[in-house]
Amino acid sequence: MAPGLVLTYFDIKGKAEYVRLALAVGGVPFEDRRLARGEWAGLKPQTRWRYLPELTVTEPGKAPVTFGQSNAQLRYVGRLAGLYPADEPLQAALVDEMLDALEDVRTPVADSVREEDPERKAEKRQKLAAETLPHWFGLLEGHAQANGANGHLVGAGLTVADLSLYQVFTWLRMGILDGVPATICDGYPALETVCAAVAGLEKVQAFERGVAERQAEAKRLAAAAEAAA
Amino acid sequence: MAPGLVLTYFDIKGKAEYVRLALAVGGVPFEDRRLARGEWAGLKPQTRWRYLPELTVTEPGKAPVTFGQSNAQLRYVGRLAGLYPADEPLQAALVDEMLDALEDVRTPVADSVREEDPERKAEKRQKLAAETLPHWFGLLEGHAQANGANGHLVGAGLTVADLSLYQVFTWLRMGILDGVPATICDGYPALETVCAAVAGLEKVQAFERGVAERQAEAKRLAAAAEAAA
Repeated sequence: MAPGLVLTYFDIKGKAEYVRLALAVGGVPFEDRRLARGEWAGLKPQTRWRYLPELTVTEPGKAPVTFGQSNAQLRYVGRLAGLYPADEPLQAALVDEMLDALEDVRTPVADSVREEDPERKAEKRQKLAAETLPHWFGLLEGHAQANGANGHLVGAGLTVADLSLYQVFTWLRMGILDGVPATICDGYPALETVCAAVAGLEKVQAFERGVAERQAEAKRLAAAAEAAA
Repeated sequence: MAPGLVLTYFDIKGKAEYVRLALAVGGVPFEDRRLARGEWAGLKPQTRWRYLPELTVTEPGKAPVTFGQSNAQLRYVGRLAGLYPADEPLQAALVDEMLDALEDVRTPVADSVREEDPERKAEKRQKLAAETLPHWFGLLEGHAQANGANGHLVGAGLTVADLSLYQVFTWLRMGILDGVPATICDGYPALETVCAAVAGLEKVQAFERGVAERQAEAKRLAAAAEAAA
């Protein structure tokens, strides 16, 4: 029997998105728990690392187990979804390598988001746009080319590494980082092919539609509640 | 037949150390390739991510495969060494969680090492010592206590997560980070028990002796060459 899964995160894409996508692509049932406004403050002290996402796994007949760290979650659900080659140690290592390289992309971006000093923030964004992101994307593009520019970062089929790349690209293309143009991901054809392959999956599109509908409904209910108050 | 393994890194502990330790503890033969002075500049452009360590795996009858990212390497060699519960997905996820949490410890430390501006460096070190490291170590201590303070971060036996903690603690205790006292790791009894368990392993001690002897021999040879010149 499959384990029960609850993924807890904010009602944004962020660091939970590739975990949600892996579950959606694999058709693995899970509770997509998105915190309501104001819920975080009360929950934070109970979390394992004082941040989200957290995944709670309940195996039949056992006590629930909760763990943090989105890549640990991604690897775990990747097995359930058939998107992680756990039975091939060397292939698994190559997927792991990509997941960690993609964290090397995210880490300086997140650091710039947290920076509060406006001058330093601008400096960090400038470096990201001119240097750091092109450096990483160039290396990733080379590896995707070496893998045959086949729409996957590793091997011949979809893995969680592809979902992780898709998440970074999709997020950066929203253009919400001052100082980093939304075009920063352009010009890497083999990476583009990976993202297009993910975006084209029927289950990814259905998942995105589901989220959009849910958010529209929440907005409608909030407006109705406000009007009634 | 076991794969051939070459681990390439500088002749320091650093990010390769937990990989070397896992191999040593598991009694897995490998070539511990430590770059000679001046070798890095020529090698760098050929590396996958422009940094080290890199692990080259040669499976019988196949072309060698090289990959970077020390945690991907650690997980791969952890399987060979019997220090990673690959066949128990949930236990593997808990080990992965610890590995990534320990990277959350290392990331701001590495950022402070790279900082070139003296004032900002001091500021970062101050924050590390007063806030960031105690925060993470406190959370890790809580999880080690919840695991029974049994000398392991996850489960009842030695895993690569314990080696990763040992590496961080051993390194910080060298006291080489200006502004971060060597005592920063003190006061966490359950974490201390993990480190003591690793340090007490006969194979770890033999490995450390081997490295010390090799370094003394290299020093002796260099001095002899200089005297002869």
